[in-house]
Amino acid sequence: MVQSSDLDEGHKMKVLIIGGGLGGMSLAMELSRKNKDMDLTVIKKEKLGSYSPCGMPFVLEGKVERMEDIILNTSDFYAQKGINLKMGFEATEIDLENGKVHLNSGEMLSYDKLVISTGRKTFIPPIDGIDLDGVYKLSDYEDGEIIFEAMKNAKKAVVIGGGIIGLETAVAFAKRNIKTTVIEMLPYVLPQILDEDMAFIVHKRLNDMGIEVFTSTKVLSIKGERKVESVVTEGKEFKADLVLIATGVRPNADLAKQAGITIGKSKGVVVNSSFNVQKDDKHLKNVFAFGDCVEIINKITNLRQVSALGSSAILQARIIAENICGGDVNIEGFLSPTITLIGDLQVGSVGLTSHTAKQSGLDFKISKSSGSTRSSYCPGRKEIQIKLLAHDDKLIGAQMIAEEDVKERVNAITLAIKNEMTIQDLLYTERCFTPPLSLLTDPLIRALENF
Amino acid sequence: MVQSSDLDEGHKMKVLIIGGGLGGMSLAMELSRKNKDMDLTVIKKEKLGSYSPCGMPFVLEGKVERMEDIILNTSDFYAQKGINLKMGFEATEIDLENGKVHLNSGEMLSYDKLVISTGRKTFIPPIDGIDLDGVYKLSDYEDGEIIFEAMKNAKKAVVIGGGIIGLETAVAFAKRNIKTTVIEMLPYVLPQILDEDMAFIVHKRLNDMGIEVFTSTKVLSIKGERKVESVVTEGKEFKADLVLIATGVRPNADLAKQAGITIGKSKGVVVNSSFNVQKDDKHLKNVFAFGDCVEIINKITNLRQVSALGSSAILQARIIAENICGGDVNIEGFLSPTITLIGDLQVGSVGLTSHTAKQSGLDFKISKSSGSTRSSYCPGRKEIQIKLLAHDDKLIGAQMIAEEDVKERVNAITLAIKNEMTIQDLLYTERCFTPPLSLLTDPLIRALENF
Repeated sequence: MVQSSDLDEGHKMKVLIIGGGLGGMSLAMELSRKNKDMDLTVIKKEKLGSYSPCGMPFVLEGKVERMEDIILNTSDFYAQKGINLKMGFEATEIDLENGKVHLNSGEMLSYDKLVISTGRKTFIPPIDGIDLDGVYKLSDYEDGEIIFEAMKNAKKAVVIGGGIIGLETAVAFAKRNIKTTVIEMLPYVLPQILDEDMAFIVHKRLNDMGIEVFTSTKVLSIKGERKVESVVTEGKEFKADLVLIATGVRPNADLAKQAGITIGKSKGVVVNSSFNVQKDDKHLKNVFAFGDCVEIINKITNLRQVSALGSSAILQARIIAENICGGDVNIEGFLSPTITLIGDLQVGSVGLTSHTAKQSGLDFKISKSSGSTRSSYCPGRKEIQIKLLAHDDKLIGAQMIAEEDVKERVNAITLAIKNEMTIQDLLYTERCFTPPLSLLTDPLIRALENF
Repeated sequence: MVQSSDLDEGHKMKVLIIGGGLGGMSLAMELSRKNKDMDLTVIKKEKLGSYSPCGMPFVLEGKVERMEDIILNTSDFYAQKGINLKMGFEATEIDLENGKVHLNSGEMLSYDKLVISTGRKTFIPPIDGIDLDGVYKLSDYEDGEIIFEAMKNAKKAVVIGGGIIGLETAVAFAKRNIKTTVIEMLPYVLPQILDEDMAFIVHKRLNDMGIEVFTSTKVLSIKGERKVESVVTEGKEFKADLVLIATGVRPNADLAKQAGITIGKSKGVVVNSSFNVQKDDKHLKNVFAFGDCVEIINKITNLRQVSALGSSAILQARIIAENICGGDVNIEGFLSPTITLIGDLQVGSVGLTSHTAKQSGLDFKISKSSGSTRSSYCPGRKEIQIKLLAHDDKLIGAQMIAEEDVKERVNAITLAIKNEMTIQDLLYTERCFTPPLSLLTDPLIRALENF
């Protein structure tokens, strides 16, 4: 509920959201569900209601038929909910002192509560030829539409970057019978979420799908006249008529920075555990930021980092909605549980990898196991690979790969880490069992025993 | 490790396990994995290595091809592991004072550590005609073989009892084109794990598969000359050439009782949190009991109850193995997470149902939600139904029904309840997301919000 102290009587609380991406639109919806009596405005560059950016690779792959299918809600839908969409506009300045935001149209909007959800920028590496026709990123809806069309005539594709978007899209290209090569600068694919040994399982699966993968390989330039013809690395040249730049994203925090809001080392907006922004060492109670534009605190290392996960943004939207409506929800740290679907392979991860654990100077031990998802005599069972990381007697990370069951396993381990369960405690926790769906002694148990 | 104080030097620790069911055989394997230098004997009535009793309905259904497929390990396998199997024998007396067990062969075995895993007895209701040909239980391997054969000529079956075994087997009969009727005395099916509203979803699914279900219906007699011909209830008579008695199981604690070991109200062996048995108000450090023959403590109500779950037995086997080998593992209470597969419907439950919560006098509130397991635009998504029970601000029970994803969800909620997470804490816990495998705001979140 709205606290009466926040408002003059008869004055509807004005909530202004800058940025109508997945996070911003979800927040608007959460707020309208909680409180119908709010003056709710979203400033939104894209002329769309809302769509699922994470769904785009699966449209390209054909798992989802058409780009339109990933449109979650039309702008009319939001209008019906009483949400005022300023579509096609951009905020140009935040005036914190006077509680106003300037738009590129010259218009000025006042607010009681401001939420900055300006999202991410695709990182475009400074490579010669990056502007050639046929070289794309996959960030906005329009990018999806362009690549969807471009795939139709493409024969050879190069994906620069072996992260989640890169690999999901590489699979899409391969499924569309485009000969596809992935080039990753780091020594293995999915380095943000996996260790090298686990990444190799994915690498091999990509190979099995006919996708070439080159790791520890740097792209030097992209060649072509007007249209892309090849991608050049040290000692190699890959012919390509379609190139995807998937070298990561950066927080889009320029607007906040211009307003004097504190920005962190990873260039994201600094927020406290209730997602209030900070200016001159003071938290602003009426200004929030969340999603891809902020830095979150890693629950294990306590270090600030960016987290460009849709799931994080949605959770933060629910927290901010609650707090704007008078609640007091804090989240002390994030574990960033992540899942990606690479062909039929479900790849999940939560907490630290060996790399991030080493980086943070944490002592850790590792345990692995592999086994079956269901009883040995049950057809349809899949092999599962599990890798766990522990510090002292507590889990700090988990990586899992299988063709089924990975998602809720990641969610369960997230709960175990969040509750700081010891390995022993988790080892002796009950699990449900029926032969066609599970194993009497799950591979997770063996991994825990192996510590 | 074995504590040296337990043993004379040069004396191998003699561990004697009475009962070679799933629990007993698992314990033997766990012990042999932990300590090769142990004198390990299992007294085992059935002349089989080990098999999965929970797998039998799925053999009958045809999900698993042959009865032999559910044999997990042959007796030769155990011999190779150095486990001494006294197959075809039964223990007739436990002499606690002298540390000896008498067998029906007249033989006498001594022990340093004794484990009682005498399992369960099928409850056979005192009905006229229960001994007729064509009336079976599904408890031992032999029962499975008999029913497997009996199905071949059967045209009409009646299953007496709408619990897990009853329903799984009813589905098996229906899949074999046998016209099947389930008769349950209580007002709804799966009363041990579901509330009435959730049970109705299963009831409906059974009907969709052509299975008739009569609840609140008591069987009065079974009719026939030598072979069963019909099952009689109040006002109705069901023709049948195959009848399954699935009216539950009872602990098989006779042997322990004869030895003066304390037996609880539900007729199971009383054990402490390390699974030591009790005699004359004293816990016996060298005598353990576990599995279907013991009473466990319900973690939420703190009441003793029997728990005939294979998964519980296996967990207890791991705990006892650790404790016999010098460990000190305690488990303060059980939540009994359970899953069953009724056709394609995965039905999961953990903690209390409304019935058991009421019985224990606990105040509770209920919340429900339904939704999709994957993003709205992703083909293959399934509907999921979730029901949660909370006491104060903490979950005490969950029931879930869907065609996918239920197992690990039950395991995750088990962790949440075990860690005594508040509803708010769980509501604001991160979850992983990718559109083809999950929903941005999972139905679980909506159920938590609905409290």
